Amino acid sequence: MRFAEQVQATAERNNSLVCVGLDPDLSRVPAHLRDLDSKTALIEFCAAIVEATSDLVCAYKPNLGFFVAYGLPGLEALAEIKRRIPANVPIILDAKTGDMSSTASRYAHGWFDEWGFDAVTVNPFQGEDSLAPFFKYAGKGVIVLCKTSNPGGAELQDQRIGDPPTPVYLALADRVQAWSEKNLASLGLVVGATYPAHLAEIRARCPDLPILLPGIGAQQGDLAGSIRAGVDARGGGLIASASRSILYAGSGVDFATQARTEAEKLRNQINAIRVD
Amino acid sequence: MRFAEQVQATAERNNSLVCVGLDPDLSRVPAHLRDLDSKTALIEFCAAIVEATSDLVCAYKPNLGFFVAYGLPGLEALAEIKRRIPANVPIILDAKTGDMSSTASRYAHGWFDEWGFDAVTVNPFQGEDSLAPFFKYAGKGVIVLCKTSNPGGAELQDQRIGDPPTPVYLALADRVQAWSEKNLASLGLVVGATYPAHLAEIRARCPDLPILLPGIGAQQGDLAGSIRAGVDARGGGLIASASRSILYAGSGVDFATQARTEAEKLRNQINAIRVD
Repeated sequence: MRFAEQVQATAERNNSLVCVGLDPDLSRVPAHLRDLDSKTALIEFCAAIVEATSDLVCAYKPNLGFFVAYGLPGLEALAEIKRRIPANVPIILDAKTGDMSSTASRYAHGWFDEWGFDAVTVNPFQGEDSLAPFFKYAGKGVIVLCKTSNPGGAELQDQRIGDPPTPVYLALADRVQAWSEKNLASLGLVVGATYPAHLAEIRARCPDLPILLPGIGAQQGDLAGSIRAGVDARGGGLIASASRSILYAGSGVDFATQARTEAEKLRNQINAIRVD
Repeated sequence: MRFAEQVQATAERNNSLVCVGLDPDLSRVPAHLRDLDSKTALIEFCAAIVEATSDLVCAYKPNLGFFVAYGLPGLEALAEIKRRIPANVPIILDAKTGDMSSTASRYAHGWFDEWGFDAVTVNPFQGEDSLAPFFKYAGKGVIVLCKTSNPGGAELQDQRIGDPPTPVYLALADRVQAWSEKNLASLGLVVGATYPAHLAEIRARCPDLPILLPGIGAQQGDLAGSIRAGVDARGGGLIASASRSILYAGSGVDFATQARTEAEKLRNQINAIRVD
């Protein structure tokens, strides 16, 4: 099954557009996990979150930086956490990879074949030939940064380029749409939830592409505005990612139950908006 | 010592602007290494290259993608190879990292504190706040992608933005220069050796910043043009990186000796150009 269909099937089964971002920070996990070595603590924490939420999500999104932060034990934990996620929930590695083609082909082989992720986020700064090695992986998800949720994202992404002058993020959306029509991979876009108006413009140009929407929750994105602007014609096509608000909903031994409650609440909020 | 000074001291000691890029591809290493498990083969190959060349270089540049490609054993090899590099030769992790600030701070902590690299390459697509966590590391090297050596690099990097219209790569060079003046980290730029004219423009705007110059060797960059355009007023300030042409100079048991010969040849070619 292609990545877009995997996400859709999971979203329908769990009636959810919620993606839980796995951004583990051991300074914020419950006290009883902090005495463990970092590898074990990362695994115990993330595996408990996954176990408590896997019937409430459309995908998981481990964030590479939060594993790199713990050295080699962090990467060992990432590999083990990947194994703990049920096979019927797609996994997006948030790595924002971008490099020239000979290197990109090594990343694509690594993240897809060796590590076994279903999708990866990529950075378009180096242009089409730097992304092409990812596009060759039939059915795998390649989610291209388009308009990011951080304030500094505007510095380059909002600049107008070309004739007629078009903001970089819209020019990128057009290119990703075109690439998706001529490649075997399952392409998507990253668009921050902090910019619903931009999201609406992008959805109009890319009616069927999955859009990964970070910035739900802790980043205080406009939830209702983003969901309305971002869903496709069938009310889906969004991967609404929340991390901190779910991971750290509780700070006691019942943290996983608290995370479940928070994930369910977010799922229901989003569902109320999308049928609205 | 700050990264720029580390590189300069090493360049002076070894009379070399050559950086060896560690991009190991086990399908290209000598036959006698291919029977080993991937972790051991990566370590044996790279450690031999390092041992044979460490008095001929100003830095090493392991390329993260070529280690990710071998799964967890690849990352284990990266950590061990880092330990095998003499402490007086700076190590640039070529990771092209770029993410919003909360994630970027985890990458910065990871690559600098946990993994112990002296410098890392970063991607500016998400703007200043996404790079700021790296800039806080006093003395560490933060080398920002500016004008990359691949053909697709032009798609975004050559676009004109702002008023007066300025190519993205020059606007970035100006920003990196400004950031370098107000931050504790030791900033630098990545500029492909395939564009000597662009390199000259960038050097004029950033007279003292180290410039990492990939694309020497296998990518057929214009060596003489790039060296002349890229050196600073003292004939240094360039980190001229070659990977495949040195790593795969030989294919037999004497591959490290062949790599040394090739590295020495490149060093001497560059030195002949820069005193020219």
